Amino acid sequence: METRVVGVDLGGTRMRVAILDSDYHLYERAEEPTRAHEGPAVTLPRLLKMIETAIQKSEVPIAAIGISSPGPIEPNTGAIVAPPNLPGWHNTPLGRIVQERFGIPAFLGNDANVAALAEVYKGAAIGHKHAIYITVSTGIGGGIVIDGKLLLGAYGLGGELGHIVMLADGERVSTLELEAAGPALGRYAVRRIQEGVQSRIVDMVGGRLDAVSGKVVGQAAQQGDPLALEAVEHSGKIVGYAIASMMHLFNPSIFVVGGGVTSLGELLFKPMREAARAHVIDPAYFDRCSIVPAALGEDVAIIGAAVLAFQSLQLQVD
Amino acid sequence: METRVVGVDLGGTRMRVAILDSDYHLYERAEEPTRAHEGPAVTLPRLLKMIETAIQKSEVPIAAIGISSPGPIEPNTGAIVAPPNLPGWHNTPLGRIVQERFGIPAFLGNDANVAALAEVYKGAAIGHKHAIYITVSTGIGGGIVIDGKLLLGAYGLGGELGHIVMLADGERVSTLELEAAGPALGRYAVRRIQEGVQSRIVDMVGGRLDAVSGKVVGQAAQQGDPLALEAVEHSGKIVGYAIASMMHLFNPSIFVVGGGVTSLGELLFKPMREAARAHVIDPAYFDRCSIVPAALGEDVAIIGAAVLAFQSLQLQVD
Repeated sequence: METRVVGVDLGGTRMRVAILDSDYHLYERAEEPTRAHEGPAVTLPRLLKMIETAIQKSEVPIAAIGISSPGPIEPNTGAIVAPPNLPGWHNTPLGRIVQERFGIPAFLGNDANVAALAEVYKGAAIGHKHAIYITVSTGIGGGIVIDGKLLLGAYGLGGELGHIVMLADGERVSTLELEAAGPALGRYAVRRIQEGVQSRIVDMVGGRLDAVSGKVVGQAAQQGDPLALEAVEHSGKIVGYAIASMMHLFNPSIFVVGGGVTSLGELLFKPMREAARAHVIDPAYFDRCSIVPAALGEDVAIIGAAVLAFQSLQLQVD
Repeated sequence: METRVVGVDLGGTRMRVAILDSDYHLYERAEEPTRAHEGPAVTLPRLLKMIETAIQKSEVPIAAIGISSPGPIEPNTGAIVAPPNLPGWHNTPLGRIVQERFGIPAFLGNDANVAALAEVYKGAAIGHKHAIYITVSTGIGGGIVIDGKLLLGAYGLGGELGHIVMLADGERVSTLELEAAGPALGRYAVRRIQEGVQSRIVDMVGGRLDAVSGKVVGQAAQQGDPLALEAVEHSGKIVGYAIASMMHLFNPSIFVVGGGVTSLGELLFKPMREAARAHVIDPAYFDRCSIVPAALGEDVAIIGAAVLAFQSLQLQVD
C-alpha cells in the first residue's frame, strides 16, 4: 500500500506543513507566519493544529511525521537544543510532543541537515550517494550525506561545517562562517574602505559604515563595484578552500551550495571552484566532483523532513 | 566453523604477514625488510612467497587476504595509486594480483585507513563506532570510522585529513600537514632562530640550520629547550584546531593520535586538547569525546588489514 508522511518546516519566519508521498510530491500544503516572538506556548499549538489538519485531509494513512527545525537537535529525544531564531524553544522535545499527540512516529532534523537530504533525493544531487550541502547566508551550515544517509556522528551533532577552522595564524583563529558568511562580506568591505579604498558602498549606506551588510555588498557587486566584487571573491575563495578540505575528507561526488549569498551566482561560484581546484593534492578529487547551486526553493525543508521520515521508518524496519 | 584471514603489511621499510582469527590474534607472523629500492619486480615475488608460506602453515582455511599499503588506493581494482615510499609500484594492482595468485578474495587499504580500523577493533578505540585516527609523523594522515566502517567516499579517496586547509590568509594557503607534521617542527624552529631566538638546537646541528629536523626539535623539547617546546606547542595547537573542525563535522566519540611525533607525549597532547576545547561552539563536542594516544605498535597495519578483510567478507555476504 502507498505510504505517505507529513513534512513539517518550523522556521524562524514561516511554518509550513504538507503531506508527501514517496516521490516527494506535496499534498495539502499549508503555510503560516511563525510569529516566533510569541514563544512556543502560542506557536506550538498553532503548529500542532496545522499538522492535525493535514493528517485529517490526507486520503492515505500517515506513516510518520518528519520535522525540520533550526539549530542543533538532540536526536534521541527529538529536542531542539539551541535554536537561534526561536526564542523560548530551548530544549523543547518537539519530536516527542508531536509523536505523543498524534500517535505517529515523529523524527526531527535540523534545517541544514534535512536540506541536504532534500537536494539528494529531489534536488540538484539526485543519484549521488556521497554529497555535501552548504548553505551560505547569515551563517554557514550544511549537511553531509554518506552512502545516502545523513552523517550525524556519535551524538547527533555532526555536519556543522560552518565551524571548521579556516585560519590558524598565531593568536588569530577563525572559522569558515566567520570568514565567509554574509556578515563577513560586510566586514571585509568596511575594513578595505577604512584602509582608503574607494567604493560606491559608502554612498549606498549614506556614509554610515556600520550599515554595510552582506546584502549591500552583494548589491554593489552586482552593479560592478570593484571593492564589492573583491569582497565576494574573497568569500568565494574561503568557501572553496573549505570545499577542498572536505573533498579530501569525504571524497563526495557533488557539493550543492545554497543560501542567500548564492544569489550572486558565478561571482561567488567562480572563485569558489578555482580555490577548490587549486588546493586538492590530486586532480581526481576535483575532476570527479561537481559544485552546483541548490535546486530546491522554499519547500526544501518540508521535502527534507519527509526524506528523513521515510528513511527513519526504513531503519526501524531493518 | 572458525574463520581466519591473512593480514599483510607492505611498508616502505618492512613487510609483515600473519594469520589472524576474528579476535585479531596473530599466528605464523613473519617479517622481512622490503628493500623498496629493488622495485616490485623483486619485492612482489618475495611478498607473495611470504603470503604463500603463511597460508600453507595455517591450520584453518583462509577466507580472505587483507593488505595494507602506503599511499592512495584505487578501491575497485585494488591498485596502489601513488605510493610515496614504494618507487616503481605506481598503479600496481596488488589486490588483484594477490587474489588471482591464491584464489582467495583480497582487499587492499591504505596504511592510515586500516590503522584506524585496527585501533577501533583491537586498540585504543575499542567500542567506539565513530572514531578518527590521526598519524603525525613525516606527513599527516588518518582514517575516519563512521558507524564502525571506514569512510572512503564516492571513489575511495576519503579520509585524507592531512590535506585539510588550516590557513587561508590572503595569498597564504596552507594545510594541516604543512603546518604541523614533523618537518613543520623543523621549519618553525629555523624561522624563529633566524628571527634571533636563542636555542640549543643551533649547537645540536653544529650551526647547520638546514639540518634542523623535526626529530632534532623533538629531542631539544624533551631536554626543555624553550624554543623547541614552543615549536611542539605550535604543532599541537594546529592539530587541535583540526580536531575541533572534525568534531563539528563528524561528532566522533574518540580521536586516536599516533605517529612518530606523538612520542613527545603530553608536550604535544596538552596544547592539542586545549586548542580543540577552545574552538568548539558547544562544550558537548569536546566533553563527550576523548583524545588519546594510539595503543597498537608495529602490528597495527597487519591487524587493520585483517579487520578490512573480515569486514569486506561480511559486506559480500550481506
